[in-house]
Amino acid sequence: MANRDALEFPNRDRDWLENYLPSTGDRARESTPFVTLTFATSLDSALAISPGVQTALSGPQSKSMTHFLRSRHDAILVGVGTATADNPSLNCRLRGTGGYGGTGLEGQPRPVVIDPHCRWAFDEQTKVIQLANSGRGRAPLIVARSEPSRDRAAVLHKAGGEYIKMSDDAGEISWSSILAQLHSKGIKSIMIEGGAKVINALLSPKEAHLVDSVIVTIAPTWLGPDGLKVCPQRADHGEEGKVPVARLVSPTWHQLGDDVVLCGHINERLDAD
Amino acid sequence: MANRDALEFPNRDRDWLENYLPSTGDRARESTPFVTLTFATSLDSALAISPGVQTALSGPQSKSMTHFLRSRHDAILVGVGTATADNPSLNCRLRGTGGYGGTGLEGQPRPVVIDPHCRWAFDEQTKVIQLANSGRGRAPLIVARSEPSRDRAAVLHKAGGEYIKMSDDAGEISWSSILAQLHSKGIKSIMIEGGAKVINALLSPKEAHLVDSVIVTIAPTWLGPDGLKVCPQRADHGEEGKVPVARLVSPTWHQLGDDVVLCGHINERLDAD
Repeated sequence: MANRDALEFPNRDRDWLENYLPSTGDRARESTPFVTLTFATSLDSALAISPGVQTALSGPQSKSMTHFLRSRHDAILVGVGTATADNPSLNCRLRGTGGYGGTGLEGQPRPVVIDPHCRWAFDEQTKVIQLANSGRGRAPLIVARSEPSRDRAAVLHKAGGEYIKMSDDAGEISWSSILAQLHSKGIKSIMIEGGAKVINALLSPKEAHLVDSVIVTIAPTWLGPDGLKVCPQRADHGEEGKVPVARLVSPTWHQLGDDVVLCGHINERLDAD
Repeated sequence: MANRDALEFPNRDRDWLENYLPSTGDRARESTPFVTLTFATSLDSALAISPGVQTALSGPQSKSMTHFLRSRHDAILVGVGTATADNPSLNCRLRGTGGYGGTGLEGQPRPVVIDPHCRWAFDEQTKVIQLANSGRGRAPLIVARSEPSRDRAAVLHKAGGEYIKMSDDAGEISWSSILAQLHSKGIKSIMIEGGAKVINALLSPKEAHLVDSVIVTIAPTWLGPDGLKVCPQRADHGEEGKVPVARLVSPTWHQLGDDVVLCGHINERLDAD
Protein backbone atom coordinates (compact mmCIF):
# COMPACT_ATOMS: atom_id res chain seq x y z
CA MET A 1 0.00 0.00 0.00
CA ALA A 2 2.75 2.40 0.97
CA ASN A 3 4.59 1.47 -2.22
CA ARG A 4 1.62 2.64 -4.27
CA ASP A 5 2.07 6.12 -2.76
CA ALA A 6 5.78 6.16 -3.62
CA LEU A 7 7.12 9.09 -5.63
CA GLU A 8 9.47 9.02 -8.63
CA PHE A 9 12.19 11.56 -9.37
CA PRO A 10 13.96 11.18 -12.72
CA ASN A 11 17.74 10.77 -13.05
CA ARG A 12 18.08 13.75 -15.41
CA ASP A 13 16.91 16.03 -12.61
CA ARG A 14 19.11 14.36 -10.01
CA ASP A 15 22.17 15.29 -12.07
CA TRP A 16 21.89 19.07 -11.78
CA LEU A 17 21.15 18.85 -8.06
CA GLU A 18 24.24 16.77 -7.31
CA ASN A 19 26.64 19.72 -6.95
CA TYR A 20 24.54 21.11 -4.12
CA LEU A 21 24.13 17.90 -2.11
CA PRO A 22 26.22 16.43 0.69
CA SER A 23 28.56 13.65 -0.36
CA THR A 24 30.78 11.45 1.72
CA GLY A 25 34.33 12.70 1.91
CA ASP A 26 33.89 16.00 0.05
CA ARG A 27 35.15 17.91 3.06
CA ALA A 28 36.22 17.30 6.60
CA ARG A 29 33.27 17.98 8.88
CA GLU A 30 34.41 17.43 12.38
CA SER A 31 31.81 19.32 14.31
CA THR A 32 28.85 20.48 12.19
CA PRO A 33 26.67 18.79 9.60
CA PHE A 34 26.38 19.76 5.93
CA VAL A 35 23.37 22.09 5.89
CA THR A 36 20.99 22.39 2.94
CA LEU A 37 18.35 25.11 3.30
CA THR A 38 15.33 24.35 1.13
CA PHE A 39 11.87 25.83 0.75
CA ALA A 40 9.25 26.89 -1.81
CA THR A 41 7.89 30.41 -2.20
CA SER A 42 5.62 32.47 -4.41
CA LEU A 43 7.02 35.30 -6.55
CA ASP A 44 6.30 37.64 -3.64
CA SER A 45 8.43 35.43 -1.39
CA ALA A 46 5.59 33.88 0.61
CA LEU A 47 5.78 30.35 2.02
CA ALA A 48 2.06 30.37 2.79
CA ILE A 49 -0.93 32.50 1.89
CA SER A 50 -1.26 33.55 5.52
CA PRO A 51 0.55 32.50 8.71
CA GLY A 52 -0.43 29.04 9.90
CA VAL A 53 -2.18 28.07 6.65
CA GLN A 54 -0.51 25.23 4.74
CA THR A 55 -0.43 26.30 1.08
CA ALA A 56 0.11 24.02 -1.92
CA LEU A 57 2.52 26.25 -3.81
CA SER A 58 4.67 24.07 -5.99
CA GLY A 59 3.70 21.34 -8.43
CA PRO A 60 4.07 17.53 -8.29
CA GLN A 61 7.61 17.52 -9.74
CA SER A 62 8.83 19.88 -7.02
CA LYS A 63 7.24 17.62 -4.44
CA SER A 64 9.11 14.60 -5.81
CA MET A 65 12.31 16.63 -5.73
CA THR A 66 11.80 17.39 -2.04
CA HIS A 67 11.53 13.66 -1.32
CA PHE A 68 14.67 12.95 -3.36
CA LEU A 69 16.49 15.64 -1.34
CA ARG A 70 15.23 14.11 1.91
CA SER A 71 16.65 10.74 0.82
CA ARG A 72 20.09 12.38 0.57
CA HIS A 73 20.23 13.81 4.10
CA ASP A 74 20.57 12.19 7.51
CA ALA A 75 17.97 14.54 8.99
CA ILE A 76 15.31 17.10 8.12
CA LEU A 77 14.59 20.03 10.42
CA VAL A 78 11.55 22.26 10.96
CA GLY A 79 10.49 24.74 13.62
CA VAL A 80 7.61 24.08 15.99
CA GLY A 81 5.36 26.49 14.07
CA THR A 82 5.56 24.33 10.95
CA ALA A 83 5.17 21.10 12.92
CA THR A 84 2.01 22.51 14.51
CA ALA A 85 0.46 24.26 11.48
CA ASP A 86 1.15 21.61 8.82
CA ASN A 87 1.18 18.29 10.71
CA PRO A 88 3.91 17.29 8.25
CA SER A 89 4.97 13.73 7.48
CA LEU A 90 8.69 14.61 7.52
CA ASN A 91 9.56 11.27 5.96
CA CYS A 92 10.81 10.26 2.52
CA ARG A 93 8.29 8.75 0.13
CA LEU A 94 10.69 8.24 -2.78
CA ARG A 95 10.30 4.79 -4.35
CA GLY A 96 12.96 2.45 -2.99
CA THR A 97 13.23 4.13 0.40
CA GLY A 98 12.54 2.05 3.51
CA GLY A 99 8.75 1.73 3.90
CA TYR A 100 8.24 2.64 0.21
CA GLY A 101 9.64 -0.42 -1.50
CA GLY A 102 13.00 -0.43 0.33
CA THR A 103 14.06 -2.41 3.35
CA GLY A 104 14.00 -1.27 6.97
CA LEU A 105 14.32 2.51 7.28
CA GLU A 106 16.97 2.84 4.59
CA GLY A 107 17.07 6.39 3.18
CA GLN A 108 14.63 7.69 5.80
CA PRO A 109 15.89 10.95 7.34
CA ARG A 110 15.56 11.69 11.05
CA PRO A 111 12.96 14.44 11.65
CA VAL A 112 14.20 17.19 13.95
CA VAL A 113 11.77 19.70 15.47
CA ILE A 114 13.09 22.87 17.13
CA ASP A 115 10.68 23.48 19.99
CA PRO A 116 12.31 25.53 22.77
CA HIS A 117 9.22 25.69 25.01
CA CYS A 118 7.78 22.23 24.26
CA ARG A 119 4.75 23.70 22.52
CA TRP A 120 4.34 20.88 19.97
CA ALA A 121 1.20 19.05 21.11
CA PHE A 122 1.74 15.75 19.32
CA ASP A 123 0.10 12.44 20.17
CA GLU A 124 -0.29 8.97 18.64
CA GLN A 125 -2.37 10.45 15.78
CA THR A 126 0.25 13.00 14.70
CA LYS A 127 1.55 12.02 11.27
CA VAL A 128 5.24 11.83 12.10
CA ILE A 129 4.50 9.60 15.12
CA GLN A 130 2.13 7.39 13.10
CA LEU A 131 4.74 6.96 10.36
CA ALA A 132 7.45 6.05 12.87
CA ASN A 133 5.14 3.53 14.57
CA SER A 134 4.29 1.93 11.21
CA GLY A 135 7.87 1.65 9.92
CA ARG A 136 7.58 4.34 7.26
CA GLY A 137 9.74 6.97 8.88
CA ARG A 138 12.09 7.65 11.77
CA ALA A 139 10.86 9.04 15.06
CA PRO A 140 11.64 12.70 15.73
CA LEU A 141 14.34 14.36 17.75
CA ILE A 142 12.86 17.34 19.57
CA VAL A 143 15.26 20.09 20.56
CA ALA A 144 13.91 21.91 23.62
CA ARG A 145 14.90 24.07 26.55
CA SER A 146 12.11 23.05 28.91
CA GLU A 147 11.00 19.61 30.07
CA PRO A 148 8.29 17.75 28.11
CA SER A 149 5.15 16.50 29.84
CA ARG A 150 5.29 12.89 30.99
CA ASP A 151 2.53 11.83 28.56
CA ARG A 152 4.24 13.32 25.54
CA ALA A 153 7.61 11.96 26.53
CA ALA A 154 6.00 8.50 26.68
CA VAL A 155 4.52 8.86 23.16
CA LEU A 156 7.84 10.05 21.81
CA HIS A 157 9.92 7.29 23.45
CA LYS A 158 7.49 4.57 22.38
CA ALA A 159 7.92 5.70 18.75
CA GLY A 160 11.70 5.69 19.17
CA GLY A 161 12.21 9.44 19.41
CA GLU A 162 14.16 11.55 21.83
CA TYR A 163 14.26 14.98 23.49
CA ILE A 164 17.53 16.87 23.21
CA LYS A 165 18.16 19.59 25.76
CA MET A 166 19.47 22.80 24.18
CA SER A 167 22.96 23.40 25.50
CA ASP A 168 22.61 27.20 25.45
CA ASP A 169 20.70 29.05 28.10
CA ALA A 170 20.37 32.38 26.31
CA GLY A 171 17.06 33.78 25.07
CA GLU A 172 18.14 33.49 21.45
CA ILE A 173 18.53 30.17 19.68
CA SER A 174 22.16 29.26 19.01
CA TRP A 175 22.08 27.52 15.64
CA SER A 176 25.74 26.57 15.80
CA SER A 177 25.17 24.82 19.15
CA ILE A 178 22.12 22.96 17.86
CA LEU A 179 23.97 21.82 14.74
CA ALA A 180 26.96 20.72 16.82
CA GLN A 181 24.64 18.74 19.14
CA LEU A 182 22.98 17.04 16.15
CA HIS A 183 26.41 16.25 14.69
CA SER A 184 27.38 14.56 17.93
CA LYS A 185 24.25 12.37 17.52
CA GLY A 186 25.63 11.12 14.19
CA ILE A 187 23.81 13.56 11.89
CA LYS A 188 26.35 14.47 9.20
CA SER A 189 23.91 16.19 6.84
CA ILE A 190 20.68 18.03 7.47
CA MET A 191 18.02 19.58 5.29
CA ILE A 192 16.35 22.60 6.88
CA GLU A 193 12.84 23.04 5.50
CA GLY A 194 11.09 25.78 7.46
CA GLY A 195 9.19 27.68 8.56
CA ALA A 196 9.73 31.37 7.91
CA LYS A 197 11.34 32.10 11.28
CA VAL A 198 13.91 29.31 10.87
CA ILE A 199 14.69 30.19 7.23
CA ASN A 200 15.03 33.92 7.92
CA ALA A 201 17.34 33.20 10.85
CA LEU A 202 19.62 30.99 8.75
CA LEU A 203 19.76 33.48 5.86
CA SER A 204 20.72 36.31 8.21
CA PRO A 205 24.31 37.59 8.16
CA LYS A 206 24.92 36.09 11.63
CA GLU A 207 24.02 32.49 10.69
CA ALA A 208 24.45 32.21 6.90
CA HIS A 209 27.99 30.78 7.28
CA LEU A 210 26.36 27.62 8.69
CA VAL A 211 24.51 26.98 5.40
CA ASP A 212 26.27 25.00 2.66
CA SER A 213 23.59 24.91 -0.05
CA VAL A 214 20.33 26.66 -0.75
CA ILE A 215 17.64 25.05 -2.94
CA VAL A 216 14.60 27.28 -3.49
CA THR A 217 11.54 26.39 -5.54
CA ILE A 218 9.58 29.37 -6.86
CA ALA A 219 6.00 29.06 -8.13
CA PRO A 220 4.71 31.60 -10.70
CA THR A 221 2.10 33.08 -8.41
CA TRP A 222 1.65 36.08 -6.10
CA LEU A 223 0.09 35.38 -2.71
CA GLY A 224 -0.30 38.99 -1.58
CA PRO A 225 0.48 41.02 1.53
CA ASP A 226 -0.97 38.58 4.09
CA GLY A 227 1.57 35.91 3.11
CA LEU A 228 4.13 34.45 5.48
CA LYS A 229 7.34 35.83 3.97
CA VAL A 230 10.93 34.75 3.51
CA CYS A 231 12.78 38.01 4.08
CA PRO A 232 15.99 37.82 6.13
CA GLN A 233 16.81 40.69 8.49
CA ARG A 234 19.94 42.79 8.38
CA ALA A 235 22.54 42.45 11.10
CA ASP A 236 22.66 46.20 11.51
CA HIS A 237 19.82 48.49 10.60
CA GLY A 238 22.32 51.20 9.65
CA GLU A 239 23.07 49.18 6.51
CA GLU A 240 19.67 50.04 5.08
CA GLY A 241 19.94 50.98 1.42
CA LYS A 242 23.51 49.76 1.12
CA VAL A 243 24.12 46.06 0.54
CA PRO A 244 21.99 42.95 0.00
CA VAL A 245 21.42 40.76 3.06
CA ALA A 246 22.58 37.62 1.24
CA ARG A 247 23.44 36.49 -2.28
CA LEU A 248 23.81 33.08 -3.86
CA VAL A 249 27.00 32.34 -5.79
CA SER A 250 27.29 29.93 -8.74
CA PRO A 251 23.49 29.80 -9.02
CA THR A 252 21.73 27.49 -11.43
CA TRP A 253 18.04 27.62 -12.28
CA HIS A 254 16.01 24.70 -13.66
CA GLN A 255 12.38 24.70 -14.70
CA LEU A 256 10.41 21.87 -13.09
CA GLY A 257 6.81 21.81 -14.29
CA ASP A 258 5.50 25.37 -13.92
CA ASP A 259 8.03 26.13 -11.16
CA VAL A 260 11.70 26.97 -11.13
CA VAL A 261 14.32 25.46 -8.82
CA LEU A 262 17.22 27.72 -7.85
CA CYS A 263 20.34 26.09 -6.43
CA GLY A 264 23.27 28.03 -5.04
CA HIS A 265 25.81 28.50 -2.32
CA ILE A 266 25.67 31.38 0.13
CA ASN A 267 28.04 34.23 -0.46
CA GLU A 268 29.27 34.89 3.03
CA ARG A 269 29.37 38.58 3.63
CA LEU A 270 32.87 39.78 4.39
CA ASP A 271 31.54 42.23 6.92
CA ALA A 272 29.19 39.75 8.59
CA ASP A 273 31.02 40.01 11.90
CA MET B 1 30.03 57.39 -29.90
CA ALA B 2 26.51 56.28 -29.11
CA ASN B 3 27.11 53.20 -31.23
CA ARG B 4 29.98 52.19 -28.97
CA ASP B 5 27.52 52.06 -26.05
CA ALA B 6 25.12 49.85 -28.01
CA LEU B 7 23.99 46.58 -26.44
CA GLU B 8 23.76 43.13 -28.05
CA PHE B 9 21.09 40.55 -27.37
CA PRO B 10 21.60 37.14 -29.00
CA ASN B 11 19.05 35.53 -31.32
CA ARG B 12 18.84 32.34 -29.24
CA ASP B 13 17.40 34.37 -26.37
CA ARG B 14 15.03 36.30 -28.64
CA ASP B 15 13.40 33.02 -29.66
CA TRP B 16 11.98 32.06 -26.27
CA LEU B 17 10.71 35.59 -25.66
CA GLU B 18 8.80 35.73 -28.93
CA ASN B 19 5.61 34.06 -27.62
CA TYR B 20 5.24 36.80 -25.03
CA LEU B 21 5.76 39.79 -27.32
CA PRO B 22 3.31 41.88 -29.33
CA SER B 23 3.18 41.04 -33.02
CA THR B 24 1.27 42.72 -35.78
CA GLY B 25 -1.99 41.01 -36.53
CA ASP B 26 -1.97 38.49 -33.70
CA ARG B 27 -5.25 39.82 -32.40
CA ALA B 28 -7.68 42.58 -33.05
CA ARG B 29 -6.91 45.47 -30.72
CA GLU B 30 -9.38 48.17 -31.38
CA SER B 31 -9.12 50.20 -28.22
CA THR B 32 -6.23 49.18 -25.94
CA PRO B 33 -2.56 48.42 -26.56
CA PHE B 34 -0.82 45.09 -26.01
CA VAL B 35 0.58 45.41 -22.46
CA THR B 36 3.79 43.75 -21.31
CA LEU B 37 4.54 44.13 -17.61
CA THR B 38 8.26 43.73 -16.95
CA PHE B 39 10.52 44.26 -13.94
CA ALA B 40 13.41 42.74 -11.98
CA THR B 41 13.27 41.70 -8.34
CA SER B 42 15.33 40.02 -5.67
CA LEU B 43 14.26 36.64 -4.23
CA ASP B 44 12.39 38.59 -1.55
CA SER B 45 10.45 40.42 -4.27
CA ALA B 46 12.20 43.77 -3.90
CA LEU B 47 12.72 46.14 -6.83
CA ALA B 48 15.15 48.25 -4.81
CA ILE B 49 17.07 47.92 -1.56
CA SER B 50 15.03 50.77 -0.10
CA PRO B 51 12.42 53.13 -1.56
CA GLY B 52 13.92 55.75 -3.85
CA VAL B 53 17.30 54.02 -4.16
CA GLN B 54 18.12 52.71 -7.64
CA THR B 55 19.52 49.21 -7.18
CA ALA B 56 21.56 47.25 -9.73
CA LEU B 57 19.83 43.92 -9.28
CA SER B 58 20.18 41.97 -12.49
CA GLY B 59 23.23 41.25 -14.59
CA PRO B 60 24.38 42.56 -18.00
CA GLN B 61 22.44 39.95 -20.02
CA SER B 62 19.17 40.94 -18.32
CA LYS B 63 19.93 44.56 -19.11
CA SER B 64 20.41 43.71 -22.80
CA MET B 65 17.12 41.81 -22.71
CA THR B 66 15.32 44.89 -21.39
CA HIS B 67 16.62 46.91 -24.34
CA PHE B 68 15.56 44.19 -26.78
CA LEU B 69 12.08 44.26 -25.21
CA ARG B 70 11.98 48.04 -25.50
CA SER B 71 12.76 47.73 -29.22
CA ARG B 72 9.64 45.59 -29.62
CA HIS B 73 7.14 48.04 -28.07
CA ASP B 74 5.77 51.38 -29.25
CA ALA B 75 6.06 52.82 -25.75
CA ILE B 76 7.52 52.23 -22.28
CA LEU B 77 5.73 53.43 -19.18
CA VAL B 78 6.88 54.31 -15.66
CA GLY B 79 5.36 56.12 -12.70
CA VAL B 80 6.58 59.49 -11.53
CA GLY B 81 8.34 57.90 -8.52
CA THR B 82 10.65 55.93 -10.81
CA ALA B 83 11.20 58.91 -13.14
CA THR B 84 12.23 60.99 -10.14
CA ALA B 85 14.30 58.43 -8.20
CA ASP B 86 16.18 56.82 -11.09
CA ASN B 87 16.48 59.58 -13.73
CA PRO B 88 16.06 56.75 -16.25
CA SER B 89 17.04 56.94 -19.92
CA LEU B 90 13.84 55.22 -21.07
CA ASN B 91 15.31 54.70 -24.53
CA CYS B 92 16.52 51.65 -26.42
CA ARG B 93 20.26 51.13 -26.68
CA LEU B 94 20.13 47.89 -28.67
CA ARG B 95 22.58 47.93 -31.59
CA GLY B 96 20.78 48.86 -34.79
CA THR B 97 18.16 51.03 -33.11
CA GLY B 98 17.89 54.67 -34.16
CA GLY B 99 20.70 56.61 -32.45
CA TYR B 100 22.64 53.37 -31.83
CA GLY B 101 23.65 52.45 -35.36
CA GLY B 102 20.16 52.66 -36.87
CA THR B 103 18.56 55.51 -38.77
CA GLY B 104 16.30 58.21 -37.34
CA LEU B 105 14.42 57.00 -34.28
CA GLU B 106 13.65 53.57 -35.68
CA GLY B 107 12.92 51.08 -32.85
CA GLN B 108 12.93 53.82 -30.20
CA PRO B 109 9.91 53.49 -27.91
CA ARG B 110 7.95 56.51 -26.70
CA PRO B 111 8.54 57.09 -22.95
CA VAL B 112 5.31 57.58 -20.99
CA VAL B 113 5.40 58.94 -17.44
CA ILE B 114 2.29 58.73 -15.24
CA ASP B 115 2.42 61.90 -13.15
CA PRO B 116 -1.06 62.89 -11.93
CA HIS B 117 0.06 65.96 -9.98
CA CYS B 118 2.89 67.14 -12.25
CA ARG B 119 5.53 66.30 -9.65
CA TRP B 120 8.26 65.30 -12.11
CA ALA B 121 10.80 68.14 -11.93
CA PHE B 122 12.61 67.55 -15.23
CA ASP B 123 14.70 70.10 -17.10
CA GLU B 124 17.16 70.17 -20.02
CA GLN B 125 19.64 68.05 -18.00
CA THR B 126 17.20 65.21 -17.30
CA LYS B 127 18.37 62.11 -19.20
CA VAL B 128 15.21 61.44 -21.15
CA ILE B 129 15.08 65.07 -22.34
CA GLN B 130 18.80 65.07 -23.22
CA LEU B 131 18.40 61.86 -25.22
CA ALA B 132 15.40 63.24 -27.11
CA ASN B 133 17.26 66.48 -27.89
CA SER B 134 20.27 64.52 -29.17
CA GLY B 135 18.32 62.11 -31.41
CA ARG B 136 18.86 59.02 -29.26
CA GLY B 137 15.34 58.63 -27.94
CA ARG B 138 11.82 59.91 -28.28
CA ALA B 139 10.48 62.69 -26.09
CA PRO B 140 8.12 61.68 -23.30
CA LEU B 141 4.37 61.75 -23.05
CA ILE B 142 3.38 62.85 -19.55
CA VAL B 143 -0.04 61.75 -18.33
CA ALA B 144 -1.30 64.25 -15.75
CA ARG B 145 -4.44 65.58 -14.09
CA SER B 146 -3.15 69.05 -13.27
CA GLU B 147 -1.54 71.68 -15.48
CA PRO B 148 2.26 71.74 -15.90
CA SER B 149 4.25 74.89 -15.15
CA ARG B 150 4.96 77.08 -18.18
CA ASP B 151 8.73 76.46 -17.93
CA ARG B 152 8.42 72.72 -17.90
CA ALA B 153 5.86 72.70 -20.67
CA ALA B 154 8.37 74.66 -22.77
CA VAL B 155 11.19 72.15 -22.08
CA LEU B 156 8.89 69.27 -22.93
CA HIS B 157 7.54 70.80 -26.14
CA LYS B 158 11.00 71.81 -27.34
CA ALA B 159 12.13 68.17 -27.00
CA GLY B 160 9.02 67.03 -28.91
CA GLY B 161 7.04 65.72 -25.95
CA GLU B 162 3.48 66.26 -24.88
CA TYR B 163 1.21 66.43 -21.84
CA ILE B 164 -1.87 64.25 -21.93
CA LYS B 165 -4.74 65.19 -19.65
CA MET B 166 -6.16 62.22 -17.79
CA SER B 167 -9.73 61.74 -18.91
CA ASP B 168 -10.93 60.50 -15.49
CA ASP B 169 -11.60 62.89 -12.66
CA ALA B 170 -11.71 60.34 -9.88
CA GLY B 171 -9.10 60.10 -7.14
CA GLU B 172 -7.96 56.69 -8.32
CA ILE B 173 -6.03 56.19 -11.55
CA SER B 174 -8.08 54.52 -14.27
CA TRP B 175 -5.62 52.30 -16.09
CA SER B 176 -8.10 51.32 -18.76
CA SER B 177 -8.71 55.02 -19.58
CA ILE B 178 -4.99 55.77 -19.74
CA LEU B 179 -4.33 52.79 -22.00
CA ALA B 180 -7.25 53.77 -24.26
CA GLN B 181 -5.91 57.35 -24.49
CA LEU B 182 -2.45 56.06 -25.40
CA HIS B 183 -3.98 53.74 -28.01
CA SER B 184 -5.73 56.72 -29.58
CA LYS B 185 -2.27 58.35 -29.87
CA GLY B 186 -1.11 55.42 -32.02
CA ILE B 187 0.49 53.34 -29.27
CA LYS B 188 -0.41 49.73 -30.09
CA SER B 189 2.00 48.09 -27.65
CA ILE B 190 3.42 49.25 -24.35
CA MET B 191 5.96 47.90 -21.90
CA ILE B 192 5.21 48.84 -18.31
CA GLU B 193 8.44 48.90 -16.28
CA GLY B 194 7.64 50.27 -12.83
CA GLY B 195 7.80 51.29 -10.12
CA ALA B 196 6.28 49.25 -7.33
CA LYS B 197 3.03 51.21 -7.16
CA VAL B 198 2.38 50.83 -10.89
CA ILE B 199 3.32 47.13 -10.95
CA ASN B 200 1.24 46.27 -7.88
CA ALA B 201 -1.74 48.11 -9.35
CA LEU B 202 -1.52 46.20 -12.64
CA LEU B 203 -1.12 42.81 -10.93
CA SER B 204 -4.17 43.44 -8.75
CA PRO B 205 -7.40 41.54 -9.51
CA LYS B 206 -9.06 44.75 -10.72
CA GLU B 207 -6.47 45.58 -13.41
CA ALA B 208 -4.74 42.30 -14.30
CA HIS B 209 -7.07 41.74 -17.28
CA LEU B 210 -5.32 44.68 -18.98
CA VAL B 211 -1.96 42.84 -18.95
CA ASP B 212 -1.10 40.52 -21.85
CA SER B 213 2.36 39.30 -20.86
CA VAL B 214 4.52 39.37 -17.76
CA ILE B 215 8.31 39.13 -18.00
CA VAL B 216 10.05 39.07 -14.60
CA THR B 217 13.79 38.86 -14.01
CA ILE B 218 14.80 37.46 -10.62
CA ALA B 219 18.29 37.89 -9.21
CA PRO B 220 19.62 35.33 -6.66
CA THR B 221 19.84 37.78 -3.80
CA TRP B 222 17.81 38.86 -0.75
CA LEU B 223 17.52 42.60 -0.16
CA GLY B 224 15.83 42.44 3.24
CA PRO B 225 12.83 44.06 4.92
CA ASP B 226 13.57 47.67 3.87
CA GLY B 227 13.19 46.78 0.20
CA LEU B 228 10.59 48.28 -2.10
CA LYS B 229 8.39 45.25 -2.74
CA VAL B 230 6.31 43.83 -5.57
CA CYS B 231 3.33 42.46 -3.68
CA PRO B 232 -0.10 42.99 -5.27
CA GLN B 233 -3.04 43.68 -2.98
CA ARG B 234 -6.21 41.61 -2.81
CA ALA B 235 -9.47 42.97 -4.14
CA ASP B 236 -11.26 42.00 -0.98
CA HIS B 237 -9.57 41.52 2.35
CA GLY B 238 -12.06 38.78 3.19
CA GLU B 239 -10.20 36.54 0.74
CA GLU B 240 -7.19 36.35 3.08
CA GLY B 241 -5.87 32.82 3.32
CA LYS B 242 -7.95 31.56 0.41
CA VAL B 243 -6.63 32.15 -3.12
CA PRO B 244 -3.53 33.64 -4.70
CA VAL B 245 -3.82 37.25 -5.92
CA ALA B 246 -2.51 36.34 -9.37
CA ARG B 247 -0.93 33.42 -11.18
CA LEU B 248 0.95 33.11 -14.46
CA VAL B 249 -0.19 30.49 -16.94
CA SER B 250 2.03 28.72 -19.47
CA PRO B 251 5.12 30.00 -17.66
CA THR B 252 8.63 29.46 -18.99
CA TRP B 253 11.83 30.14 -17.09
CA HIS B 254 15.24 30.80 -18.67
CA GLN B 255 18.53 31.35 -16.93
CA LEU B 256 20.33 34.48 -18.15
CA GLY B 257 23.71 34.89 -16.47
CA ASP B 258 23.10 34.47 -12.74
CA ASP B 259 19.46 35.55 -13.06
CA VAL B 260 16.32 33.84 -14.25
CA VAL B 261 13.72 35.30 -16.60
CA LEU B 262 10.13 34.19 -16.07
CA CYS B 263 7.65 34.74 -18.90
CA GLY B 264 3.94 34.09 -18.58
CA HIS B 265 0.43 35.25 -19.19
CA ILE B 266 -1.86 36.38 -16.40
CA ASN B 267 -4.49 33.96 -15.26
CA GLU B 268 -7.48 36.20 -14.92
CA ARG B 269 -9.32 35.36 -11.76
CA LEU B 270 -12.84 34.18 -12.44
CA ASP B 271 -14.11 36.00 -9.37
CA ALA B 272 -12.19 39.20 -10.09
CA ASP B 273 -15.38 41.23 -10.34
